[in-house]
Order: sequence, then C-alpha cells, then structure tokens
Amino acid sequence: MRLEDNIRRVTPYVPGEQPQKKVVKLNTNENPYPPAPGVAEALRTMDADRLRLYPDPEVRMLTESLARYCQVDPEEVFVGVGSDDVLSMSFLTFFNSGKPVLFPDITYSFYKVWADLYRIPYECCPLDEKMHLRKEDYKRDNGGIIFPNPNAPTGLYEELDVIEEILKSNPNVVVIVDEAYIDFAGKPSAVSLIHRYDNLLVTQTFSKSRSMAGMRIGFAVGNRRLIGWLKDAKYSFNSYTMSWPAIVCGTEAVEDRAYFQKTTEKIIAVREWSKKKLAELGFEFPDSSANFIFAKHPEYDGGMLFSALKERQIYVRHWEQPEIRQYLRITVGTKEEMQKLFDALDEIMNK
Amino acid sequence: MRLEDNIRRVTPYVPGEQPQKKVVKLNTNENPYPPAPGVAEALRTMDADRLRLYPDPEVRMLTESLARYCQVDPEEVFVGVGSDDVLSMSFLTFFNSGKPVLFPDITYSFYKVWADLYRIPYECCPLDEKMHLRKEDYKRDNGGIIFPNPNAPTGLYEELDVIEEILKSNPNVVVIVDEAYIDFAGKPSAVSLIHRYDNLLVTQTFSKSRSMAGMRIGFAVGNRRLIGWLKDAKYSFNSYTMSWPAIVCGTEAVEDRAYFQKTTEKIIAVREWSKKKLAELGFEFPDSSANFIFAKHPEYDGGMLFSALKERQIYVRHWEQPEIRQYLRITVGTKEEMQKLFDALDEIMNK
Repeated sequence: MRLEDNIRRVTPYVPGEQPQKKVVKLNTNENPYPPAPGVAEALRTMDADRLRLYPDPEVRMLTESLARYCQVDPEEVFVGVGSDDVLSMSFLTFFNSGKPVLFPDITYSFYKVWADLYRIPYECCPLDEKMHLRKEDYKRDNGGIIFPNPNAPTGLYEELDVIEEILKSNPNVVVIVDEAYIDFAGKPSAVSLIHRYDNLLVTQTFSKSRSMAGMRIGFAVGNRRLIGWLKDAKYSFNSYTMSWPAIVCGTEAVEDRAYFQKTTEKIIAVREWSKKKLAELGFEFPDSSANFIFAKHPEYDGGMLFSALKERQIYVRHWEQPEIRQYLRITVGTKEEMQKLFDALDEIMNK
Repeated sequence: MRLEDNIRRVTPYVPGEQPQKKVVKLNTNENPYPPAPGVAEALRTMDADRLRLYPDPEVRMLTESLARYCQVDPEEVFVGVGSDDVLSMSFLTFFNSGKPVLFPDITYSFYKVWADLYRIPYECCPLDEKMHLRKEDYKRDNGGIIFPNPNAPTGLYEELDVIEEILKSNPNVVVIVDEAYIDFAGKPSAVSLIHRYDNLLVTQTFSKSRSMAGMRIGFAVGNRRLIGWLKDAKYSFNSYTMSWPAIVCGTEAVEDRAYFQKTTEKIIAVREWSKKKLAELGFEFPDSSANFIFAKHPEYDGGMLFSALKERQIYVRHWEQPEIRQYLRITVGTKEEMQKLFDALDEIMNK
C-alpha cells in the first residue's frame, strides 16, 4: 500500500475565472453594485476586540433579521457559509434513503458533486425542448428532489403551481428549491409555501442580489422540523462557521430593504434592455428571470465568441459540455459594462 | 416511508456556553487579548465594494503570508474556515483505506464526529498513567493517525522525537498533528519536519494564539503532494469558503509577529503563575503547554466546583464523561481574570 492509495479521488471543479486585472467581468453572476451602505459602515465601526471570542453559534442576530424579512419564525431559518454550504449540509441531512435523488440534467453543477461526496445515488431528468422542467419526471419513486428556480444556467422561472404539484407528489421526501436568483425574477418565492408543505426547503444566497459574494452567506427556510434537523447535523460536525463580520454585515444588508429593491430593479431593467440588444444581434436565449442571460448565436460558435470576448478583456462563462457548448452565460452588469459587451460583439461579428 | 425516515441521525455536539452577559469567560480557550492592531485597522479601511465579488478561491495573500511565517512554500499551505474545517476536509481526503484511524481516547471530541460523518472506522488508544501518548499503540496496522500536540484537554506536549517515531512507523498513511495550542508550548512545532516526512500534515488555528476565533481561520502545512490532494478535494466540493475580510484580517495578524509574540508570552507567564496558585490550593494537573489547565482537586467534586464557579459568574469547562468528570478545564485569561477565579475558589473551598 502506498500513501496515494488512501487518497479520496475527486473531479476538481473549475470555477469561473477571478482575474486580478481590470476586466469587464460578466462570468460569475456577481452584482455590479456595492453592498448596502450599512455594510461598509458596519465594517468601519466593528469592534475588532470582539473577534477574539467565538461567534454566536446560533447566528441569532442574522437569523432573526432574515425571519422578519421572510415573514417566518427564526426557528424556520438556517444560515450557512454561502448557499453552497447550506445545500451541501442539506444533501447530507435529508437525502439518506438510498433511493436516487432527482435533479435536472442541465442545472447547477455542484448537485452531482455533493451527491458523489455523500455517496447519494442520483438521476438527472432532462429539460423539455423549451428548457423548462418536466414536472412528470419528478413523480416517480425517489429519495429527494432539488432544482434551482430560476434554473441555472437557463435563467428560466417555474411557476409556483408547478412546484406545488411536485411537492404534493412527494410528501415523504424533501424537495429543495434553490432560489439563488429569485430576487431577479419579479415573481413569487416558494418561501410563501413553507407553512403548507412540510417537505419544502427553500435556499437563498447573499452572493447575487445582496452584493456579498465576498462574505459567504447563504440561508435556508423551511418548517421548523426540517430546520431543526439541519441544525442538529450542522452543530454536530462544526459548531462555529459564520464569522462575526458575516453576521453583522449580513444583518445590515437584510435590514436595508430600499437599497436592495433599488439595485435589484436596476439589474432587472438592464437585463431587459440587454435582451433586446442581444436579439437585435441575432442571439437566441431562454427568457431569463435571473441576473444572467444564457445565449447562443445560430451563426457563430460559442467557443469562438467566448475567446474573442476574452481577448477584448470581456469575461463571460462558457462550458465545453456538448449540450451547451454553443451557449454563453452572460452576467448582467451595469449598462456601461453591457454596452462594452455589445460593442465588442458588433466588432467580432462584423469581421 | 415517512419524511423522518430519510433524515441523517446525529449526536449533536454541545459547545462551551457563549453567555451574552458579562462573565469571567474561561470556558472555550479564547485569547484574553484583542487581535493585532492591524486587524482593527484592516476592518476600518476595508473596501466594502470588494464584497460584491467572490473572494480569491486560492486565498493567495493569506497563504503566502503563512508560508513566509512557517518558512515553507505557498504550495505547502492550505487555508480553511477554522481548523475544524481543515481537519474535517483532511479526514475526508486522507482517511480512505477502510482501515481504522487511530487517535487518543482522551482528546478533541470532534475526531470521532468526523470519522462517523465520513463512515471512517476508528480506534482510540488510551493515554498512559501520566496522560501522555503511548507511541507503541500507533505502530499497528491503521488507516491514518491524528492527535493534538499539545493534546486537549490535558495540555501535554509530546517531544518531536516521539512524533518522528510515529511518522517513521507509518510511512504509508497520513499522520495529522493538530497544533491548535502549539504557540503556547514554547517548544518546536512539527512544521519543521514536513520536508523530511511526506506523510505529515500539521494543522494550526487563528482562534487561540491569534485572538481571532470570531473570524474562523485555520490552516494546514505539509508537503505539496498532500496539500495538492487537500486542495483538489476542497475545490471539488466548495470553491469559495474564505471570506474577503478573513483573508485580509488574517494576513494582518500573521504579519505582526511582535504583537503575536508579546501576547503569547503574556499568556504563558499567567499560565505558569496560575499553576503555582492552583497547586497552592491543592489542585492536581498535568503540566500544561497550552492556554488552559486541566485540573482536579482530590477533595472537591469537579461538578460541584464547576457549578459553584458558574454561580459566581466564572465560566470554566466541565464534562460529564466518567474518566474526566473530576476535572475542570480552565482557560488562561488575564491575570485579573485568574485572580477572580482564585478568589472564588478560596471562597468555595473555605465554606
């Protein structure tokens, strides 16, 4: 036996690039606007001496703020280090039946990773020809269900009646609705359903609509039994994960509803304007409800466009998987950033 | 099948209390002094706008600073959200042989938790009558080894020749030396051995000697092959875990070596003074090299002393496990805090 024989085999994930130089960065769905002004103020006035103590393991201040925002009880909220942490802990906690967990074939790539990590079997359900979920696929025997709404990278929102039908068909397994992009949808969140379906867990993140990807905050909302199980699992493995600055700054972000609404509306407006511009350029795309647009051009290769944009210091996201390799996932930036993108596309496509 | 049939069963960990009121808090091994002044300054001057972007997934700034401090290459350093995160990821990455992992029977309680979490078999090796490791126990066939040095909650340091003997006997499995308390030992760290033993991983934390429990930072040092495997595992499950404030403030803490040395020396001096006072009061304790003292009194019950101190607003740590229930684990605070402890003990024991 050699040392390397005992090492866990993994397929490393390649995240979107984080270039150190100044570029037009439309590749990782970050928010183009800064966090709420209260966040800067909280950092500036934070008592650094407090850092010597462990943070509140129950994260009460932030949990209570989120509960008020979501109009639920604090016992119905669970907070973690980004929604990746919350989702990973949810896979571990809820998907233990040994039956396959179901999720769409084109979706957030980490679902497969966490299933493999915790040895959870899974099956992928194909999207329909318009890239929507096919709800019938989620009515077979399974060990749990997860999908983003809006889905990534398509950006498509599923109406709550679709989600309710899936919830009703699966009363004995947990159905996770990953709402990383819900605030850009202008449509209702499934949070409104948690008191009617005790098998529903809804997750959200501070990394997109709250401009705090750099702070690592995510949360889940569900009935108190689900949240209790999630807390039991979390405390048993790692009691302290949320840093003191994350708790304080996260709370400031939640409390400033006016700023949140204003920046979110700006992004939605720029997205709708960008859709028009992309259509004028001949691009085709599902009608995104998120802060990105998943677009392809019938005459230009996706990989070529990706590289040509990158040469011009404009970063978008591109994958080599055959089903989606003609697509670019373009984050909605400021209007100025998007104008630079369209100017570059003009130039590339008129060559 | 009911919803609850699919939920992961766990034994919730009960962390040391984090009282909200003003007490003499000697129960969770926190540092009584604030973080380095540069940490407060970094928070005060931090560019909050940067929070809208994901943090550097490679955590380069902090990794490079730690590499300089440890006199190793940046490729020999891995950073995580507290050493709990680093250790949990190490269990997952390195302990995959199916053979039992070995650790002491009296030690950090999370080792069992992570082994159970990842379905890793384990065996506990009893300490000797003086509470030291028995190195012979670590020479049998195994799937990996982990122990703290100094051990917790005994506070006892093992000399590097003991560790080298264990490393030499186990060339094909990873040996993790958890140095959460090493900076209080005044003795050499096993980091100096990483270039001679490719099966050695050393972990440390910012929560104790660097006064940053509230920021959640830990790290591992080992040869680049081990660190590479750890990074592969980490990136494949969760790309972004270290927040931007943790990276910036952590770097400031590492760079201020004079402050670090000064506060660490103060704690060591108060510990040695406290040992004398405890001995005068009739307590017995292993000769701690950490920032806590694990003490029992031949005439007074540990649980009684714990409760009587708590009534007097002095919090120390106490466990109900039969082997150690006569002991109190007393964190070394400031001299003033320790004097309050001794005054209270005087009062309790003279009743």
